[in-house]
Amino acid sequence: MDARERMIGATLRLLRSQGLRATGMNQVVQESGAPRGSIYHHFPNGKRQLVIETLRAAGDAVARKIADALAAHADTAVALRKYVEAYAKEIRESGFQRGCPVGNVAMDAAASDARIRAACDEIFGTWIGLIAKRLESDGSSKKEANSLATFFISSLEGALILCRAQRSVAPLLRVAERLERMLR
Amino acid sequence: MDARERMIGATLRLLRSQGLRATGMNQVVQESGAPRGSIYHHFPNGKRQLVIETLRAAGDAVARKIADALAAHADTAVALRKYVEAYAKEIRESGFQRGCPVGNVAMDAAASDARIRAACDEIFGTWIGLIAKRLESDGSSKKEANSLATFFISSLEGALILCRAQRSVAPLLRVAERLERMLR
Repeated sequence: MDARERMIGATLRLLRSQGLRATGMNQVVQESGAPRGSIYHHFPNGKRQLVIETLRAAGDAVARKIADALAAHADTAVALRKYVEAYAKEIRESGFQRGCPVGNVAMDAAASDARIRAACDEIFGTWIGLIAKRLESDGSSKKEANSLATFFISSLEGALILCRAQRSVAPLLRVAERLERMLR
Repeated sequence: MDARERMIGATLRLLRSQGLRATGMNQVVQESGAPRGSIYHHFPNGKRQLVIETLRAAGDAVARKIADALAAHADTAVALRKYVEAYAKEIRESGFQRGCPVGNVAMDAAASDARIRAACDEIFGTWIGLIAKRLESDGSSKKEANSLATFFISSLEGALILCRAQRSVAPLLRVAERLERMLR
């Protein structure tokens, strides 16, 4: 893994556990073990660039997982439940330390950085679009598909907050259950 | 309003817009206009105490609004929709600057402060309990009432994140709509 990838990996871990404001360039250098001088070489525009590139990489990884789950199960409700269950497992295994980097950052950036906020919006939009497309091909109208997919992603983001507050995956599993019922 | 109340008010505004980690005692003193020396007089245990008391006050205010909405409408689905609509209006009027203080702080505290995290859990639990109690009196089983109320609160928290990322209240209104359908 090259220095650039290590810096993105470290940034991702920090954004997931502590959010945007607490994460500084010095800490990323430290955590990544990359040479100090190289961070501005790879990210000449500084923290905003590093954060946006990290969010895009994380957003793509999540989009691939959603696409894989949808591809693996002909039944959309089952696919989404499997996706949520895998996510719940990951959160539990992290000792509830890891939140969603995009949700965490959106909360911090909404009042402080319009470009980072817009990047979060775009990533949420990609996830919603993937699910909406499948719901449409299942027979929902475009409007209904978009509404349901938005509801799914927002329910997941919120359940993750409650999971971390409760130190329990129950709220996430509840979303999986409810959504499955809603799709039937 | 006395100095103590002003400090709690300032802390609340800061937690809603910027979260736990970015909010320091100095900024609270500045924003509240309270005399510098008085903050440790009122909150001898420092930031953690100030934050927990602020969250409890905010949590109580939300609980009163939920209870008022439930008391004002015999139909639970209508009551919750009205509550969400009023909340959406407030968020829009703040220019999407204001998030939920408890959701914001839970995200930050999950990996950093067990006592603040536990306070968030307790407050979410109060809100969930209020709604679950009403759903039970509407005829749901205890388990179902709790599951639905948890789902409602987590959906709201997540929708708020998407609203702030999108600068649109659509995700919150979607929750109101979906929940209403689910309760019918």
